[in-house]
Amino acid sequence: MTEAWPDIAGRIEGGGHVLPVRVYYEDTDFTGRVYHAGFLRFCERGRSDFLRLAGIGHADLMAGAEAGEGSFFAVRRMAIDFLGPAGIDDLLEVRTRFRSASGVRLVIDQEVRRAARTLLRAEVTVVVLGTDGRPRRIAGLLRSGLAPLLAPTWAGGG
Amino acid sequence: MTEAWPDIAGRIEGGGHVLPVRVYYEDTDFTGRVYHAGFLRFCERGRSDFLRLAGIGHADLMAGAEAGEGSFFAVRRMAIDFLGPAGIDDLLEVRTRFRSASGVRLVIDQEVRRAARTLLRAEVTVVVLGTDGRPRRIAGLLRSGLAPLLAPTWAGGG
Amino acid sequence: MTEAWPDIAGRIEGGGHVLPVRVYYEDTDFTGRVYHAGFLRFCERGRSDFLRLAGIGHADLMAGAEAGEGSFFAVRRMAIDFLGPAGIDDLLEVRTRFRSASGVRLVIDQEVRRAARTLLRAEVTVVVLGTDGRPRRIAGLLRSGLAPLLAPTWAGGG
Amino acid sequence: MTEAWPDIAGRIEGGGHVLPVRVYYEDTDFTGRVYHAGFLRFCERGRSDFLRLAGIGHADLMAGAEAGEGSFFAVRRMAIDFLGPAGIDDLLEVRTRFRSASGVRLVIDQEVRRAARTLLRAEVTVVVLGTDGRPRRIAGLLRSGLAPLLAPTWAGGG
Repeated sequence: MTEAWPDIAGRIEGGGHVLPVRVYYEDTDFTGRVYHAGFLRFCERGRSDFLRLAGIGHADLMAGAEAGEGSFFAVRRMAIDFLGPAGIDDLLEVRTRFRSASGVRLVIDQEVRRAARTLLRAEVTVVVLGTDGRPRRIAGLLRSGLAPLLAPTWAGGG
Repeated sequence: MTEAWPDIAGRIEGGGHVLPVRVYYEDTDFTGRVYHAGFLRFCERGRSDFLRLAGIGHADLMAGAEAGEGSFFAVRRMAIDFLGPAGIDDLLEVRTRFRSASGVRLVIDQEVRRAARTLLRAEVTVVVLGTDGRPRRIAGLLRSGLAPLLAPTWAGGG
Repeated sequence: MTEAWPDIAGRIEGGGHVLPVRVYYEDTDFTGRVYHAGFLRFCERGRSDFLRLAGIGHADLMAGAEAGEGSFFAVRRMAIDFLGPAGIDDLLEVRTRFRSASGVRLVIDQEVRRAARTLLRAEVTVVVLGTDGRPRRIAGLLRSGLAPLLAPTWAGGG
Repeated sequence: MTEAWPDIAGRIEGGGHVLPVRVYYEDTDFTGRVYHAGFLRFCERGRSDFLRLAGIGHADLMAGAEAGEGSFFAVRRMAIDFLGPAGIDDLLEVRTRFRSASGVRLVIDQEVRRAARTLLRAEVTVVVLGTDGRPRRIAGLLRSGLAPLLAPTWAGGG
């Protein structure tokens, strides 16, 4: 079915990832704007689809495809600037770039834009946890496909 | 902490259950009303808290407190009439009544009201599934605490 | 930006509409499945994008593009059968077909599928309301672009 | 109806506000934990109910109760540390404290706890916008009821 919808996971562009997101009823609130936490859902879609195009799927991770045990991504920290509103029917783009990787964490820069205007900027720190809730090293993930698709700065990470 | 908030799970009243629900930003959409699927979240809170007061918790079920294996409730069917709107800051009440039980399914009647006005009516059919996705008999649940708190009609169920 | 993402609103196919939907973290719950009300969000995206391809936008409606006054779609009734689960990373398709139209209401048939399997079936009745909360006739909407794109059964509506 | 549910908006305690929040199906994701953006919804409920107990309602603001024109709160910035997970059935407390106020912005400290454990810490900057999207001064809000209920540090704000 992926063949029928070639853009469904967005695209890798210029060392980063871009995902189109439409604003629906569910995303708005009574002020006529996208609810602030709704933007975080958009950002998570961008991160997930970037990983997907790098060959890393959440279902596979949870099923233990890495190192024989279930694991998953969890957000550890976010700093978010809400710079402008989005409204119903808007077509947005989520832009995601991996900034750095250390032993157990990834730092990711994200933006949400409508045409040339930046509506949100976020710095997101994520970790990989085992089902026991403890952090796992991400070196394996990098080797398995993430590294080559990432921005030059990625190479400098640990 | 439950002692500090005695009404946090609502109350059993007249053979049914009533749960107060406040409308927040997250529940509304750009039309200024509660998003239609938001009402389903309110109804699910009512069902969960009714079960909670009957001694049945989702975490316990999933941990295998029943019959030594993980299980959980799943919605199989809903018929919903949206009769009137709710808006930001409204204080609503979700009213839940178990109508009947057969071997593997519960039929539940729910209403959402604001003061005397009924905003939504739903008939919900739920089942209990094991982690293998297959239905489990609910007789054990009934014996373990649900039955005595329920409406008279409940007794007639299978 | 729509040109860059030609499939972003799905496609009209065989008198109906099909929209691909990816399952993300936000859509799942602790049972490992898509939360039941999450499927309603998917269905609403399908209805909105079908209308979009027919030239009807929610922002335009609310701005009074029809008849000089703000109006919007509201769900009046839903009957939903949940036939099977969806999980993280699944690629689903929402299929939408307009069944009938009367003076003030549309009846819409929807399905959510994963490949050949139908996971959900819904019959949805929607109305168009003015900002005063009262129903508006939908004849104008039909003339303005909805009719020619719809299923043959549509023509028989009032 | 508020009389029937005296704790529905939480309580003012020690210069801050505390709101109990139950974790339901809707709040969790397939990892078995509260979805990260779900915590932001909890925080927003805490802020809204703190304001409510101070006599400030969103519906009133939007209806123009302040200065004859519609206005609303919007989040401008958040810095969030996710310190620990919450799961289905957990009873949490959202603790909210106003740290400072300047001409057009409020800075708010929030925590989400389960018993003695802090699961999340957030610093939230909010503004009040008119329906034209431009910032409004918040002095009027302060005079109208917010100030006396707030923490001592509040008095030092501009």
